[in-house]
Amino acid sequence: MKFVLIPDSFKGTVSSSRVCSVIEAEIKKEFPEAVTVSIPVADGGEGTVDAFLEAVGGTKVSTSVKGPFFEDMECRYGILSDGTTAVIEMAACAGLPLAEGRKNPAETTTFGVGQLIAHAAALGVRKIIVGLGGSATNDGGCGMAAALGIRFIDHDGKEFVPVGKNLSRIASVDFSRLNPVLENIEIITMCDIENPMHGKKGAAYVFAPQKGAGPEMTELLDRGLVHLDSLLSAAAGRDIGRIPGSGAAGAMGAGMVAFLGSRLESGIGILLEVVGFDKIISDADYIITGEGLLDSQSLGGKVIAGIAARASLQKRRVIALVGGVKDREIQDIYGMGVTAVFPINRLPQDFSVSRNFSEENIGYTAANVLKLLK
Amino acid sequence: MKFVLIPDSFKGTVSSSRVCSVIEAEIKKEFPEAVTVSIPVADGGEGTVDAFLEAVGGTKVSTSVKGPFFEDMECRYGILSDGTTAVIEMAACAGLPLAEGRKNPAETTTFGVGQLIAHAAALGVRKIIVGLGGSATNDGGCGMAAALGIRFIDHDGKEFVPVGKNLSRIASVDFSRLNPVLENIEIITMCDIENPMHGKKGAAYVFAPQKGAGPEMTELLDRGLVHLDSLLSAAAGRDIGRIPGSGAAGAMGAGMVAFLGSRLESGIGILLEVVGFDKIISDADYIITGEGLLDSQSLGGKVIAGIAARASLQKRRVIALVGGVKDREIQDIYGMGVTAVFPINRLPQDFSVSRNFSEENIGYTAANVLKLLK
Repeated sequence: MKFVLIPDSFKGTVSSSRVCSVIEAEIKKEFPEAVTVSIPVADGGEGTVDAFLEAVGGTKVSTSVKGPFFEDMECRYGILSDGTTAVIEMAACAGLPLAEGRKNPAETTTFGVGQLIAHAAALGVRKIIVGLGGSATNDGGCGMAAALGIRFIDHDGKEFVPVGKNLSRIASVDFSRLNPVLENIEIITMCDIENPMHGKKGAAYVFAPQKGAGPEMTELLDRGLVHLDSLLSAAAGRDIGRIPGSGAAGAMGAGMVAFLGSRLESGIGILLEVVGFDKIISDADYIITGEGLLDSQSLGGKVIAGIAARASLQKRRVIALVGGVKDREIQDIYGMGVTAVFPINRLPQDFSVSRNFSEENIGYTAANVLKLLK
Repeated sequence: MKFVLIPDSFKGTVSSSRVCSVIEAEIKKEFPEAVTVSIPVADGGEGTVDAFLEAVGGTKVSTSVKGPFFEDMECRYGILSDGTTAVIEMAACAGLPLAEGRKNPAETTTFGVGQLIAHAAALGVRKIIVGLGGSATNDGGCGMAAALGIRFIDHDGKEFVPVGKNLSRIASVDFSRLNPVLENIEIITMCDIENPMHGKKGAAYVFAPQKGAGPEMTELLDRGLVHLDSLLSAAAGRDIGRIPGSGAAGAMGAGMVAFLGSRLESGIGILLEVVGFDKIISDADYIITGEGLLDSQSLGGKVIAGIAARASLQKRRVIALVGGVKDREIQDIYGMGVTAVFPINRLPQDFSVSRNFSEENIGYTAANVLKLLK
């Protein structure tokens, strides 16, 4: 027997990696001879590097970069065991926890992310995966771009590194001095949200408030992103600001596309590719996935759907353990390749109570599913 | 494929019969060719006759008897398709709903139950199953006994039909004129509680309050049962009042044993015997059972345990759908023959909310289990 465990985290209760451990322990009890492959899923935010390293092995590299307030800090990213792929999470040097107590999306920068990319590139990797999410910034990726040689000039001809509050000061962008070390390196961006760059559903209005912006600052940030969009779209010859995900992580999504020519991809798609999922499941009997809440949103390229799509091509059986199933009418999930879904709620309890038993309930449900498979 | 459905009711939400229908509908969808046998489980209380008739077929017989307040009423019981077994539920003529608005365990009688037994016996049945539960009475079965010829004499030598309030008036019991029609008829009593006849865990203290007794009346009823116990135990030469279940249904349990020489048996044991469960499952692929709450109590001869014990003798697989699993440590349930347990809670919701979705959730869980079995 071979089991492949590839669960998302149960948001706010159990990490993806821990879900793997819990299920694996039950497999050991019910099928002591079974082979188990654990692939914790990350969404680009905090924990992404660890998840990749756990899934395929590799090492962590440490270097000194600028933090969200341009302060110096030590920061780590991952080089996967193939030696040619780097995994960077922007949260490592531009994350909200780093700004705790002084959150301010008008002042914070993604400069350090650019430095990490340059550092990895200089090591000779061929592919760099950048995880978006959990950011403290709203600079449209300008800080990152500046760290990689792109120049931002104001109306007085003066070069500066833009942050959220002064994006409107940019008069022109000079792409010509982009760090040549990036040539021939594929840069892939993990991005699981669909928000546009600006407007009511954009980076500032939707996300800046939780990064510390009041109504006035939010408006200022949004106006800055509108201005940046006009410059980037003109340079790219395409409408950058409307690309789904361009508003991710303080419009870092837009920056990754416009400054570095990166693609925005779903985290799960990238993970499945990097770990060689198709090969791993080719001799698997069961794939066990899961997530906190299965609802209509789950169908849009999210974790379970992404896994099921790959698995169904090989007619593999996919079992999903979930914290809840919101829409009873999600029959599509079966059509998409999920064999069966099992909510983990051992007792009829409100989430405020049951969240304390998530880990135990995941184990209980896994055990009973396994007993049925015997 | 053959499925045997034998769920208990999900107390307070979905009847056993309805649970069968819901699961059967899902089987039709997932395994259109499958054979399904539905055996709704009853506990002796209201619905017991219907459950037996649904499981094995038969007819209902109607007759006129005394209700809980000695009023005349029409009442029905079942004759199973074998033509030789009658099923009577005491609730039919001595049930709490019949006393609604005038509940009074000091005045109510089980007289009608005795009349039903006599009626069935006169029809020539060889076996009478009497379901206890849901009673409005606390007469120790004296009313039933009186209807079957047993005479209760007071200290003035006067015959009377005792009720809860005047059990202490009984000076002697004359068993000699028991209706001869009962000779050679096996009388089996369905009784799923273990309470003794009297005392703090006895019929009066535990159950009389919900039948309308205040503290004083409860004490009076308990004293009456102590007195009745002394008379019955002396006559039987054994300690009637301590028999587990003697306190069931206003001490009707004691009366069934002492007046009619009946055995008290678990409802599920009787049901499994009557329907020929061993034969039914001999070619079954899966047995699906269930109940509202699986806890330590479930292990004591209750529905799931009873079914699992029989099933494991034939190495049949037993799947339990349950409203909740209270004690995580119930590992014994597997040792007893249950293959796997699936709680039906589709979302983390308190019972006050989820109880409204029980039926839907049973169907959802059944569907996913079936999909996994495909």
